[in-house]
Amino acid sequence: MQEKNSDLHGSAPDNASIALLLVDVVNDFEFEGGEALLRHALPVAEHIAELKERCSREGIPAIYVNDNFGKWQSDFKKLVAHCLDDGTRGEKVVELLKPDEDDYFVLKPKHSGFFSTTLDLLLEHLGARTLILAGWTGDICVLFTAGDAFMRDYRLIIPADCIASQDETENESALKFMERVLEADIRTSAQLEFHETHIRKKFATRR
Amino acid sequence: MQEKNSDLHGSAPDNASIALLLVDVVNDFEFEGGEALLRHALPVAEHIAELKERCSREGIPAIYVNDNFGKWQSDFKKLVAHCLDDGTRGEKVVELLKPDEDDYFVLKPKHSGFFSTTLDLLLEHLGARTLILAGWTGDICVLFTAGDAFMRDYRLIIPADCIASQDETENESALKFMERVLEADIRTSAQLEFHETHIRKKFATRR
Amino acid sequence: MQEKNSDLHGSAPDNASIALLLVDVVNDFEFEGGEALLRHALPVAEHIAELKERCSREGIPAIYVNDNFGKWQSDFKKLVAHCLDDGTRGEKVVELLKPDEDDYFVLKPKHSGFFSTTLDLLLEHLGARTLILAGWTGDICVLFTAGDAFMRDYRLIIPADCIASQDETENESALKFMERVLEADIRTSAQLEFHETHIRKKFATRR
Amino acid sequence: MQEKNSDLHGSAPDNASIALLLVDVVNDFEFEGGEALLRHALPVAEHIAELKERCSREGIPAIYVNDNFGKWQSDFKKLVAHCLDDGTRGEKVVELLKPDEDDYFVLKPKHSGFFSTTLDLLLEHLGARTLILAGWTGDICVLFTAGDAFMRDYRLIIPADCIASQDETENESALKFMERVLEADIRTSAQLEFHETHIRKKFATRR
Repeated sequence: MQEKNSDLHGSAPDNASIALLLVDVVNDFEFEGGEALLRHALPVAEHIAELKERCSREGIPAIYVNDNFGKWQSDFKKLVAHCLDDGTRGEKVVELLKPDEDDYFVLKPKHSGFFSTTLDLLLEHLGARTLILAGWTGDICVLFTAGDAFMRDYRLIIPADCIASQDETENESALKFMERVLEADIRTSAQLEFHETHIRKKFATRR
Repeated sequence: MQEKNSDLHGSAPDNASIALLLVDVVNDFEFEGGEALLRHALPVAEHIAELKERCSREGIPAIYVNDNFGKWQSDFKKLVAHCLDDGTRGEKVVELLKPDEDDYFVLKPKHSGFFSTTLDLLLEHLGARTLILAGWTGDICVLFTAGDAFMRDYRLIIPADCIASQDETENESALKFMERVLEADIRTSAQLEFHETHIRKKFATRR
Repeated sequence: MQEKNSDLHGSAPDNASIALLLVDVVNDFEFEGGEALLRHALPVAEHIAELKERCSREGIPAIYVNDNFGKWQSDFKKLVAHCLDDGTRGEKVVELLKPDEDDYFVLKPKHSGFFSTTLDLLLEHLGARTLILAGWTGDICVLFTAGDAFMRDYRLIIPADCIASQDETENESALKFMERVLEADIRTSAQLEFHETHIRKKFATRR
Repeated sequence: MQEKNSDLHGSAPDNASIALLLVDVVNDFEFEGGEALLRHALPVAEHIAELKERCSREGIPAIYVNDNFGKWQSDFKKLVAHCLDDGTRGEKVVELLKPDEDDYFVLKPKHSGFFSTTLDLLLEHLGARTLILAGWTGDICVLFTAGDAFMRDYRLIIPADCIASQDETENESALKFMERVLEADIRTSAQLEFHETHIRKKFATRR
């Protein structure tokens, strides 16, 4: 096709200095250790659902950054439907966190949401420099995604009550690592004040 | 989620030393110059449809590498439906080239199919080292994708009758460039012998 | 080492909205076709040398984006010394274009200066959104680098008298392609007015 | 320059299924916390020096993956000279670990050796699928590099006595994370048997 003008490629995405990344929340939990994770993830899903709604009211877009589970031919909506309709362990969680029509999604083939995906370009188009991360598992995919975000100079907010891992000690340890090394703000979602965040972002221009 | 084992991420994709990349074929042609391109693209679409069928018989997977048209929230199936159902200029072309259930697709935000997408990783998973390129426009998105493929050491087959551009002279000139610089085999699809290609591929291991 | 603070990684690079990329200018021309290229490159090298000096006066940094010639263990200064001291065909050209102490350099393993290098990050650190390209060959490495720059939304200035290729017709054809598709300003270096460029750059913020 | 043939770009790098990555070992330790790190790093440097020598005898190439310390205009040899000649804290360590003529080096601008560098392509050229990691700090740059290596399906060997961090508890915790999540072999260098590793590598083809 003809695309002399690079603007044709960009059209008009949202403009948002902050974005909410939902990591692997669409999940059937049908794997070894899935039950253990689900125990932690279900209450966390309620916090994330609230956080997502608050973000929506503040004009902060939600981006589902989700494992493709090796299903290269699949698409995200099919994955959502599978979790909801096939009687999977993940039904309740996905019911709470299912995407809305205007949410974004990025299928990731590996642990980090930035690896071999279009996430960085999407965030650049949005103008986002601060990322709120939520999802699971805190000690693997959230951690990998946060590390990659830090290297790309994003500011990180990772509310302690919005991530879950199979093992609580590992979750806690990952959280502390992200606070210490990645300079993440790990206060709980209830303590999160967007007003303050909006002020902060002024200092968070991309270098 | 828990993913200690990297194999969980890979599951079992096809195994194929050759892949067919269909560049921007799903297209509504509703842009300035779209009519001019359509005139060239429609007969080409018939060649591509035949080529795709032949590939399918040979076990060569088809990957739709398609512009997302700046619609970051959209998905590929919606795009196909739009082209077919909304009375667009592209209806006939997309009718000929619409994806089958087991085809792959990669939405590209920019001209090259490799830029900020998971295409390279998908091809690595498939084991593909030779790429057959088809689609439009020959002098822009096909060219950019071919250049990126060449830098990644893929062998290129770009049948002269399977690409189209708005301007025929530019199409011809792009084709010659891809033959001269990118070492592409540009014989027409009718001349393409997969047997020979299969033999060749033995020398096309990734360095 | 400890690097909690990402600023430690950045230190204080220059700040420049425009950068001059010198593509493959450090070259011994000791390859098949090297003599043919040299014939075109030598007069062009004089234009590039002048352009570089003008850029220097305007505070526009020069970045050598140079082939590593498969010498992964080598470094750029060794390459410069080789061209100058070993009686190579490239001696005169490299004498004209040898790097100054405060020039930047990026060794590229493949055709495009952006592929598998740190160039994009360096340009981001500099704040550069407009690139002046010069060097050779116009129809291969300059073209690949320009295409990748275009996809990353850089504005391009490619003075017609500052690139060279083995074949003049191919050089001309590449130049026209870069003007038509990549929207490059291809006026000669004498016609280039930095004042105008500085004004333009205001519209060239990264999306 | 002319480079129709991609082989010109590759020349003949070593061929090695295993590579030794030395992370940030060339370091002046002249930063806040540098003294604390040095205390742990000095004895570790002796283990790494022995490991490097053993690797050399086995034909395993060493790749210095080193911070550029925000000095984009600098080069690796200058960095080595600075550490050795300017009376820096790092003198003893760098004396032990200074590069040999045929070692490789990759300057990294950020924490992970893979981010915005040519490391992945270099490893592909070498044919390396197993990486031995050594250096500092274990809980930051080694960890980031290891995580990125894991996502790219490299096998990891990270000898427990060959990494150091400012804080020993964090070092230990990072080591356990790399064993648990990244499936790294963390036995000490004395326990490392290359014979066994060589056998293993047969199963470590890419993907």
